[in-house]
Amino acid sequence: MVLLDQTRLPAAETETACADVPALVDAIRRLAVRGAPLLGIAGAYGVALAAARGDDVPSAAQALATARPTAVNLAAGARRALAAWEASGGDAAAALAAARNLESEEAAASARMAEHGLPLVPDDARILTHCNTGFLAAGGEGSAFAVVLAAHRAGRLRRLWVDETRPLLQGARLTAYEAAAAGLPFTVLPDNAAGSLFAAGQVDLVVVGADRIAADGSVANKVGTYPLAVLARHHRVPFVVVAPVSTIDPDTPEGAAIVVEQRDATEVTAFAGHPVAPAGSPAYNPAFDVTPAHLVSALVTDKGLVQPVDRQSICRVVKMSLENNATMSP
Amino acid sequence: MVLLDQTRLPAAETETACADVPALVDAIRRLAVRGAPLLGIAGAYGVALAAARGDDVPSAAQALATARPTAVNLAAGARRALAAWEASGGDAAAALAAARNLESEEAAASARMAEHGLPLVPDDARILTHCNTGFLAAGGEGSAFAVVLAAHRAGRLRRLWVDETRPLLQGARLTAYEAAAAGLPFTVLPDNAAGSLFAAGQVDLVVVGADRIAADGSVANKVGTYPLAVLARHHRVPFVVVAPVSTIDPDTPEGAAIVVEQRDATEVTAFAGHPVAPAGSPAYNPAFDVTPAHLVSALVTDKGLVQPVDRQSICRVVKMSLENNATMSP
Repeated sequence: MVLLDQTRLPAAETETACADVPALVDAIRRLAVRGAPLLGIAGAYGVALAAARGDDVPSAAQALATARPTAVNLAAGARRALAAWEASGGDAAAALAAARNLESEEAAASARMAEHGLPLVPDDARILTHCNTGFLAAGGEGSAFAVVLAAHRAGRLRRLWVDETRPLLQGARLTAYEAAAAGLPFTVLPDNAAGSLFAAGQVDLVVVGADRIAADGSVANKVGTYPLAVLARHHRVPFVVVAPVSTIDPDTPEGAAIVVEQRDATEVTAFAGHPVAPAGSPAYNPAFDVTPAHLVSALVTDKGLVQPVDRQSICRVVKMSLENNATMSP
Repeated sequence: MVLLDQTRLPAAETETACADVPALVDAIRRLAVRGAPLLGIAGAYGVALAAARGDDVPSAAQALATARPTAVNLAAGARRALAAWEASGGDAAAALAAARNLESEEAAASARMAEHGLPLVPDDARILTHCNTGFLAAGGEGSAFAVVLAAHRAGRLRRLWVDETRPLLQGARLTAYEAAAAGLPFTVLPDNAAGSLFAAGQVDLVVVGADRIAADGSVANKVGTYPLAVLARHHRVPFVVVAPVSTIDPDTPEGAAIVVEQRDATEVTAFAGHPVAPAGSPAYNPAFDVTPAHLVSALVTDKGLVQPVDRQSICRVVKMSLENNATMSP
């Protein structure tokens, strides 16, 4: 399995080969591959890889599902390929077909999100985004980034403000890379500078992705999302989350129940091998934060717009999605 | 004139020598020396240096005063040494004495701020701070950091949360260095993670410094301060600014009139020579932001506590300070 190593972007476009599931788990942990929908696809292909190699497929699926604790898609993708493999009586081709189906479904979901999100973008919009939600994070054109691209194609994007997204700089490294590739008018900023933009009336809309959405509509997303939601509310700017229904986890009842991954202190205290804090400094480094539903103006999914965002509307869109899937061929 | 080069901390404690005012202006611009009160002291010593060298002293004072546009102390320090030099009929010793007086006054001001700020710190406090306000930024023990130190000595500090303070990481590099040196219990965090700490009820108090305070009580401070003020208000956590009265500029009528320095894009798009955004990416990189007075719970000055912070209370403390100075020997 060959992946674009996203930790090397934008300096180098390097591919990294994962010969087996332990190598893929390592690539997932060190964020060579990341982004909620893409993790789901990687999880499914990883199970297919284990099946093709004749490895212990249930163990491989378990290792993939738990490689990172917060992203619901990763576990779901691995489970789906595992279920297909089990249903076929242990046929590796069935696991691969499940992974391919997931990939094409995610691409279709991306197109639906762009379609449902576009009406929320005003003319001449200055959109602020956080972290990375484009083709490097998802199948197709992504989640929040797909809405930005649709706005650009519709002639409505004046500027995309790209939060650099410390500590791992997915905004500066990856979203700016996607924005440059797509020819968007964009500007990178230190996350700290978003407040000045809001205060100056330079932000018309915030769009972000999600790593997990609880049943009450709470949104776990890259750390720094929640402060943006608070700023957006303070300045009466719409705060929109774009994510496929597959990101909603009905088994997580509320925001407080979301397990937030704590990452290594060295991601904060060193940069590219340079220490940026005194040796041994402790660091608080959560990968995600949780934004309560009442701060989310709208949730754009592949199954339509959810607004207002609350337990009832979340339940409705999940049910609709399950019914749609039930009417599809298995 | 020999300075500790703060751009090299914490990796190296390097001294940089400034043989003349252009070298000092360069050191100020590249932030080898920074921090509002320390800039004032540097400005005054710079004028003394020009006088000792027999340079054009008024031109040197002008170059120093305008080396960075936002910090009011820098211009004030340069002007004060220039005034002493002019009053003495061009005696270099008078400029040097003025610089030395300013330095000892700033150290005394630091002790007064610690004294006036300590009553605002609750028992077992978890204090969040931003940027750098200790002995690397000021005469004596600093401004906000002097209050934190006083709380530690009084046995009231459970933890100091140190915002890393992108883009130049003065928190991680300098405040963590000061905190480690003073033996404080501290933890560094990406600025993005402050929201999670507030949401988890892990912040009892925010204390920050100021680079310039307008007559209406608006506070210009390191970019990222304003988002903290909004978060603090959202979570009903006191947001306290600690700054000497010399930081108040009565000639700046309101926050909107504060000129905010825009810095080079490369501070954001590259790190220690490594590109972190695609080549040529534009960046929005304001050095400061402006927090309106209504979000500031209290202003701790060397002349006492200002609370509430508004045009009247700011006017009162400035007047009191001028009267005190008038009763001192010239």
